[in-house]
Order: sequence, then C-alpha cells, then structure tokens
Amino acid sequence: MGDEVKYQLTEDQIPEQWYNILADAPSAATPGLHPGTHQPLGPEDLAPLFPMDLIMQEVSTDRYVEIPEQVRTLYRQYRPTPLFRARLLERALDTPAHIYYKYEGVSPAGSHKLNTALAQAYYNKKAGVRRLATETGAGQWGSALAMACAFFDLECTVYMVRASYDQKPYRRVLMETYGATVLSSPTDVTHAGRSIRAENPNTTGSLGIAISEAVEDAATHDDTNYSLGSVLNHVLMHQTVIGQEAKQQMAMAGEYPDVVIGCVGGGSNFSGLAFPFLQDKLTGGRESLRALAVEPAACPTLTRGRYAFDFGDTAGMAPIVKMYTLGHTFVPAAIHAGGLRYHGDAPTLSALYDQKIIDAVAYTQVPVFEAAQLFARTEMILPAPESAHAIKAAIDLAKQARESGAAPVILFNLSGHGHFDLSAYDAFHSGTLESFELPQEEIDRAMTLLPAI
Amino acid sequence: MGDEVKYQLTEDQIPEQWYNILADAPSAATPGLHPGTHQPLGPEDLAPLFPMDLIMQEVSTDRYVEIPEQVRTLYRQYRPTPLFRARLLERALDTPAHIYYKYEGVSPAGSHKLNTALAQAYYNKKAGVRRLATETGAGQWGSALAMACAFFDLECTVYMVRASYDQKPYRRVLMETYGATVLSSPTDVTHAGRSIRAENPNTTGSLGIAISEAVEDAATHDDTNYSLGSVLNHVLMHQTVIGQEAKQQMAMAGEYPDVVIGCVGGGSNFSGLAFPFLQDKLTGGRESLRALAVEPAACPTLTRGRYAFDFGDTAGMAPIVKMYTLGHTFVPAAIHAGGLRYHGDAPTLSALYDQKIIDAVAYTQVPVFEAAQLFARTEMILPAPESAHAIKAAIDLAKQARESGAAPVILFNLSGHGHFDLSAYDAFHSGTLESFELPQEEIDRAMTLLPAI
Repeated sequence: MGDEVKYQLTEDQIPEQWYNILADAPSAATPGLHPGTHQPLGPEDLAPLFPMDLIMQEVSTDRYVEIPEQVRTLYRQYRPTPLFRARLLERALDTPAHIYYKYEGVSPAGSHKLNTALAQAYYNKKAGVRRLATETGAGQWGSALAMACAFFDLECTVYMVRASYDQKPYRRVLMETYGATVLSSPTDVTHAGRSIRAENPNTTGSLGIAISEAVEDAATHDDTNYSLGSVLNHVLMHQTVIGQEAKQQMAMAGEYPDVVIGCVGGGSNFSGLAFPFLQDKLTGGRESLRALAVEPAACPTLTRGRYAFDFGDTAGMAPIVKMYTLGHTFVPAAIHAGGLRYHGDAPTLSALYDQKIIDAVAYTQVPVFEAAQLFARTEMILPAPESAHAIKAAIDLAKQARESGAAPVILFNLSGHGHFDLSAYDAFHSGTLESFELPQEEIDRAMTLLPAI
Repeated sequence: MGDEVKYQLTEDQIPEQWYNILADAPSAATPGLHPGTHQPLGPEDLAPLFPMDLIMQEVSTDRYVEIPEQVRTLYRQYRPTPLFRARLLERALDTPAHIYYKYEGVSPAGSHKLNTALAQAYYNKKAGVRRLATETGAGQWGSALAMACAFFDLECTVYMVRASYDQKPYRRVLMETYGATVLSSPTDVTHAGRSIRAENPNTTGSLGIAISEAVEDAATHDDTNYSLGSVLNHVLMHQTVIGQEAKQQMAMAGEYPDVVIGCVGGGSNFSGLAFPFLQDKLTGGRESLRALAVEPAACPTLTRGRYAFDFGDTAGMAPIVKMYTLGHTFVPAAIHAGGLRYHGDAPTLSALYDQKIIDAVAYTQVPVFEAAQLFARTEMILPAPESAHAIKAAIDLAKQARESGAAPVILFNLSGHGHFDLSAYDAFHSGTLESFELPQEEIDRAMTLLPAI
C-alpha cells in the first residue's frame, strides 16, 4: 500500500448518479405534512417552492438518480475532491488507528455546500425560474448558492441571520461578489419578518426566522423558488457524491472504514459521506460498520432532542416533518460552528438514528477547537469549526485505539476549511470560548410548543 | 482532447528536482554585495542568516537541485495542484483564445508560498536551527512559514507590518493558530525598530522595515535564522514545482502556451511558473514564447523602476543586490494586493527583464478587481487581489484575440485564493478603491537615495 497520503481520482471517476438511501432503508421515508392542514404533503403543495424535478427527487424511492451532464461538468471545476490518509496526525497521536478524511474544502465555496447548490440552481433554471430565495446562518450555504446562481444566471436573494450579517460582513461581501442580494433577517420585506420585528425590534434573528422569510418570499412570487441547503432528502442525495468518491478512494487505499464520521447541523455533509457506506451496511454485508454523527453540545438535536413532528421553521410556514428536534422555537447559543445551529435534523437521518442504524455524540466548543488546532498543526489544513466536530470524534476514537491496541480504520468528512472562521480561532486563543451545555429545562420548555400531531 | 476542464497529475508526478534557470541563463546571475563593505558577498557573509544548504542553492549554477524526500512528502499534502482550462471564462469573453490557469490556492496556506516555506523550514531544521525570523506584509508568507515551522517543530517569529497587523487581525490569528509569535513592526525588540519608532512614533511600518527587523533578529541570535518568502534565487527555484507540473499538464491538454503570465511582487510565483517554460525558450526551440510579468501601477518596479544596485531592506542591513527597484526608501501606496508592495524585484528576474527575455505590464486596482469579479462569476474561484493582476492580463490578451482572430494559448498562475481578502472586495463594491498612479517625482526622489555603487 506504500505510504500514500492522498488518494486522487480522475474526472471520469466523478459519480454519474446520486444515491438515494430510501431504496435500501424504505422505513426511513417519512412524508411531510402541510403546515396549515397537517395533512400529508403532495407534490402540488411543494410546487410553489420547488421545481418539479426536485420534488420528484424528494419523494423518490429509486436507488439512483442520474446527475445531469451540465451539473457533472460544473462538479469537474473542483471534483473529485481528495481523500487523505492522516499520517501526520496519526504520528502525533501515536495511534495504531488508520485515519482517513475526505476533504470538501477544495471547493471554491470552501465547503461541501456547492454539491447541492449547483444541482438546485440547474433544476430551477431548467424550470424557467428567474430567482431563488434562501436563508443562511454562518454564510456557507448562502455563498455556495450565490456562486451557483451566478453560473446559471439566476437572481439570488439571501436572508442572512442578523447576528451573522452584523458580525460577519466578509461573508456578505463574498455573496455580493457573486451577485447575490443579501438582506439582514428579519427584514421588513416579508410579513414574517415584519411581525417578528414588531414583536421584538432588537432580535438578532435565527435560522428558523430566516427560513420563514425565504419561504414566504418564494411562495408569494411566481418567478421565485425556495432553496434549502440541508435537511431535505434531495439535498442529502446530492451530497452522496462525497461518499461515492470516498468508497473508490478507500478501495485505492486497500481499506474499508470501521467507522465513518461527520458533523451534523441539518445532516447533509454527514449523510453525503455516510449513506453510500451505509448502503453496504444495509445490503452489502458490512453490518459492523459504525456511522457516527457529531453535534455541538449547545444544539444536541440527536443526543438530547425528541423524535417528533415539528415545523422546519420558526413561523410555522414550512412543512411539518418527523425528525429529531429541539423544538422550532428553540434558538441555540451563539457557538462559532454556525452551520450546526439548527433546531432539527434531516428526517431521513433522524429515522436512521431512531432505528439505531447510526450513532451520535455531542461535544462542547473548547475540546473541538483543541482538536482543530492539533489537526491544523499536523495536517496543515485549517478546519471549519463545524468540521472540527468530526475531527474531535476521530481523535477520540484514535486515542481509544491506542489504549485498546485495536487498529480501526476511521474515515471522517472534513466538510470545509476555516479561512472564513478566524474570529472563532481568535476567541479560542484568547480563552473566551464558552462551553455551552444546554439546560434540560430549556429543552423541556421548547418541547411544549411542538405542533399537536 | 475532449472537453476537460481540469488536468490532474498523480502524486508520483510531483517534480523530483527544482529547476535553476541560471544554468540556462548564466548571464542572469548577479552576486550580491555586503551592505557595509559593498564587497561581493561570500557564503560566510550569509551564514548568520541562512543554513549552508540554502546558501549553496543561492549561488548554485546546477540546472537541477534534488528535492529532499521529506519535503516531497509534505508537498503531497496539497500537490500536484490542478491546472484548469478556463472554458467558462472563455465562453463569457467569447474569445478564440485558449486560457489555462495553474491553481496554487488549494495549498492549505491558500497560496504558492508554502512551496518554499516547507523547503526552508526543512533545511533550517536539518542545520539545527531552533527558530526562524521573518517579515510579512499582507500575511500570506507569514502564514505559510508558520505552518511549515509547526510541522518541523521550529519556533517562528513574524514581524508583521503594523498597518496590516492592525487592519488584518485574522491573518495574525491564522499564524498564531500554527504557533507563531507575531509582532507589530516596527517593534521595540530590535535596534532597527526602536530607531524607526523614535524617529516616527506614528509610522504604519513597511515591508522594508520589517525585513530590517527580522534580519537583525536572526543576525543577533545564534539559534535563529532568517527566512525570506521571495526575491532570492533559492526561493524562486523552490517555486519551479509550479511550472514543472504545469508543463506536464499542458502536455496532457495537448497544447503549449504562447504566453505565460504571473503577477510580480518579489517575483516568486511568476518565476515558479515561467522559468521551466523559459528553459524551452532559452534552449528548447520555443523562441516565440512570451513571459509576461504583471505588477500594480502603484508599485511599478519593472515598468518604471531602475535596474541598479540597491538594498533589500529599508535600514540598509540586508544585502545589496542588482535589481529593478523603486528605491529602498520607497513606500508604496496601501493597495489591497499587499503581496505586490515591495520596492524591488528578484535579481534573477530583473536580469531576464533587462535582457528582454521577459516582458512586463502594470495595472491600476479597479480594472484588476473587475477582472477578478468576472473570473469569480465564471470560473467560481475567488482570486487573491495579487493573482487577479495575472487574470487581468490574460483577459486583455483574450479580448485582443477576439479582435485579431488569432487563437493564442494563454497560461497564467492563479497563485492564491481571495478568502482572506474580502475587505478588498468590499472596497471594490462600495466604489472606494483608489487607482494609484505613481507620480514620476516620487520615483525620482527615491532614486537619489540608491547606494553609490
């Protein structure tokens, strides 16, 4: 096997299809409900928000969906992404474990988000849509969609959570460079925004509020659709290019993972890496494969939330879905891993967790940044705070291996670089990072506001 | 040739040797002079600053220098870097030109600087050095050296130009994450720094001053060496991995460039790409190859400077070298392409320009950012402001081709991404970018202070 550190595929090895785990785990399909009537959603209910191609993908149980040639052409601008053996980190940990990571930070957006942004922009353009509306928290998703819209000549309106809009002007500048219009949410251009501002003029906004605004924008403009960067099944499916590539690369390395790890906000980068491997667990004789979702202790949706029907947004305008949730009114503490601050999780991922097909763990900020710094100083890449959650879990398993003498093969998703997140590292160095642990009362209170289904 | 957009080499195609252009252009060798005695520098004069391996590389006329295996191993963390055919940009320009770019922004430092940082850290570690001192302007070089020192377990002290230290805290944070000590230059820890502060307490610093401080630090501490990110011949040589890879990749594309383009601050990314191609011009029958250096109009060293002996730093402590210079006391305007703000240029590159083997052009900021934005919206990658100078030149040539009907093959170096430079894009969007054109009087005045050689 030599001493390779990087496993590089060629352009023709970019997957030609997305993988849909619902074909192999049909019990994970949980149709959404209409937010007003609480009746099962039909395609026609989603038509004001999404193009029909994406609606069909959302409800599809086909195992594979062909990737359009134009999307594959754009993937070639940055895919296949490299898979690394973390030999330098292994050496620093003095561990017998073999640690691999798939690196999505080479994308021009700096994260995996472009994998679905390009696909969503493509299908909307094809359907004759003129403009996309979306929300963004930390800004990774908004940046990726702005890039994709620039390419497909679509207008792009981004509702950016006010706290981020004020604190992260560079993310706004990045989106504007790609031609997007970025608004500080809550705005005064939507009914949802105006009513929240009237109630609480000093609100710093939340992802749930920004989703309400973007959904309303799309629902009330004929030429405008809505675009979401995680949670939905078609989004998770688009991300499976990650895991499909990683399987080919692990084969090049002559190994197969004992555990695959990803951080979870809504669930798209975790699912993108893990689902193609879980196919082997579900149908291919890899029963012992462990899939580990890592979340922040400040927003512990899987590890401490409830599996229940809940709204996807704060205002109750988005569909109701069955998922692990902390309650749609829950506003997580302002941790630096902004991409992990969502009250719910993808319904498909939630079902798999409920069925004990995947596993989860939560960490507070300081140990996550310690892991990030060790990783940077050995492997050289500065990780995004979100991705650093996966690193922390991988390091913990590698340390356990040192004690136990086992030599597990660990694979994690390094979903993005941290070049936009240096204020977070600054806080870490200056010792001002708080270790938010969520009080149980706060969870209990939010749970009382779940819709009565 | 299909419709490839990306030409990807495998790890075993990373060059095994650096290329030294002095073997093929011996007349470009111009030995430096001692700053005090004005006598030719011998290896012993440089020994307080550099390890002997690098001194030998600096004066070598061998055509190739073997890359140590440990350095090649580290190169594999991010090399080979991709070469792209800019099909999306070509389409937007409606040009018959074929535009290619080599992308060094995939390095974990975000630029080409790591290619020499790793080599320099390696040779210093091998020589038993404990600490490296260096300067940084915008922060790209300091970040790269901090990363390399982290890997080789060397301490790293970075003298960061005060204006950048104050305005770009995130760059400081990045260096600190990799364990470097970052000081605001001028400091009070060096004689040079103290005397400049005494003279002008409100100085915002300059690259020339920061070099003086780093050189003094190294010269006055036995366990400390100095490290420079450009200008010197061994630095240019380390960067030739770029051009050697690009030659293999252009061969994969079945083409050979008519023109190779790079931005020039000190000259290392330009030389890294161009020198391996210039070898063909000098000895391989490619006489018509054009190599085009692109500089900012605010610091037009090649296009408006003088070819003369001058100090490498402001305080007159660094060696005197023959180069194109605007005078060592010249302080360029605060353009956003901070990496291009150096009063001189590499002596080797200067000699080749003097001998008309290479060509140069200068641009003001606004058209450079217009080119950067067009590039971002088509090719998706956000370029560093420095690299955007090369893009501007490539676009101009491609537009000329549209008029003339020729179909030239254009290759430029995209030396880094712009994720650290969003404040510059912000200024561009808000219309506050100034187009500094340097008044001739200012050049004339600085010229009166050249050393009398």
